[in-house]
Amino acid sequence: MRELKGRRDLLAINTATLGYQQPLDQTIHLLAEAGIGGIAPWRQEVEALGVQRAAALIRAAGLTVTGYCRSHYFTAASRQAREQALAINLRALDDAAELGAQCYVMVVGGLSADNTALPAVCDQALEGVMRLAEHARQCGVPLALEPLHPMYCAERSCLVTLAQAIQWCRQINHEYPASAGIAADAYHLWWSPTLEEDLLQAGELLLACHVSDWLVPTRDMLNDRGMMGDGVIALPAFRAQVEKAGYGGLIEVEIFSRDNWWLRPPAETLATCITRFESVV
Amino acid sequence: MRELKGRRDLLAINTATLGYQQPLDQTIHLLAEAGIGGIAPWRQEVEALGVQRAAALIRAAGLTVTGYCRSHYFTAASRQAREQALAINLRALDDAAELGAQCYVMVVGGLSADNTALPAVCDQALEGVMRLAEHARQCGVPLALEPLHPMYCAERSCLVTLAQAIQWCRQINHEYPASAGIAADAYHLWWSPTLEEDLLQAGELLLACHVSDWLVPTRDMLNDRGMMGDGVIALPAFRAQVEKAGYGGLIEVEIFSRDNWWLRPPAETLATCITRFESVV
Repeated sequence: MRELKGRRDLLAINTATLGYQQPLDQTIHLLAEAGIGGIAPWRQEVEALGVQRAAALIRAAGLTVTGYCRSHYFTAASRQAREQALAINLRALDDAAELGAQCYVMVVGGLSADNTALPAVCDQALEGVMRLAEHARQCGVPLALEPLHPMYCAERSCLVTLAQAIQWCRQINHEYPASAGIAADAYHLWWSPTLEEDLLQAGELLLACHVSDWLVPTRDMLNDRGMMGDGVIALPAFRAQVEKAGYGGLIEVEIFSRDNWWLRPPAETLATCITRFESVV
Repeated sequence: MRELKGRRDLLAINTATLGYQQPLDQTIHLLAEAGIGGIAPWRQEVEALGVQRAAALIRAAGLTVTGYCRSHYFTAASRQAREQALAINLRALDDAAELGAQCYVMVVGGLSADNTALPAVCDQALEGVMRLAEHARQCGVPLALEPLHPMYCAERSCLVTLAQAIQWCRQINHEYPASAGIAADAYHLWWSPTLEEDLLQAGELLLACHVSDWLVPTRDMLNDRGMMGDGVIALPAFRAQVEKAGYGGLIEVEIFSRDNWWLRPPAETLATCITRFESVV
């Protein structure tokens, strides 16, 4: 397992962690000044700044883009809505390429009021990702399927386990080789009794590694993630397994924390991320 | 799949559903008057009424006890606390036998502040259940392992998947034949992409079938379960799979709903359970 002490170059910050309190150009500047290795920006920020300007600033700052967040949901009751999602995702892939992103993060969508048959919804989601795959290859930006925690199955992602993500990747890569991989997020996966073997199975499919922590108690299902070290996830064990599986990229911190970290100055949150990254991840 | 219309004899009510607003003797009376087939009472209610009196009333009312709720957590950092849990669970098993319960429901416990290594916690939990198994056989009350939703992994149950429960049952039953089975709860399991195959694998291990619904949005992780039909779980598909796997027992309604059903008169909640049981389960 890699030693992280003094290795800020291996740390990436998902911009959501800083609570979207400042425009992207300021965040890029903040990260670069701190000697951070990578950034994972969100579509709305990039679009607000302009993709070319964002790409230029990120390049100039020497930041790796560990992922571009994130796909428009593929699942919807109407075919028209699904076609619209495809168009949005194709455009976002172009932007991901412009940014030099290591992957485009796939949060595939959940059930809808009109569509609660989970297997059919999964079929829709897989079909949606599959239809992006050829363009992803052409762009040189692989699709990173991110299995979310099962508590998001209804509203955000019918893709909820690593085993399922591996299976989808195999189906997609069979048609479009090397177009799909996986974003493994400790927050979404830590509970699984088969985590270690599933990560090993994932192996070279692993395109991204996200960390945060599970707070006890968790007061909000979406926006109460913890800073690494403040919760119960055995993060060093998680990282050891991810690295044993062959992952050698940056470690991305992604924390949604409406009532805590998002209320603090970005510089303070970033400083804590760095300390914790070096000591408890 | 069985037709449930007019089959209240196949309906069991977990008393938690009624919000603990009245003592157990009144709940028994209410259910019997409504022609309900079964009841799943909680330890604190039974102990408050006295186990022999509770058992006598339930027998007189002709109610099947679909499960006795529920185990004291097996997981704890100190050995002393784990021994105490064992003693409590052994006594509760005696009470379950007195009640004629079809199973004693196992919610095995999660992590603790001193113990966040998930595999070690799972070992503790399995060991705890294993130590109950011989007594369970002697009492004639099988242990029903209930995998909880992964969002409860930290605080309530390191047992979070059906596959894991099946594996534990095999280990336990290898030592103590026919002592362990599974309680399959739609709320905890519906999200799984391998649900159908796992239920088939569980087969005759299935000792109980619980239903409620997953609300969108879910405002509280513990006490915001929905009435069947008010959420997104494909309950008829779930029941079809459970029955295809060989389960032929009662269907138990278990709803934790602090801000809705627990505020309503028990008779109203029960009437709604009956209507929904006959129409959407």
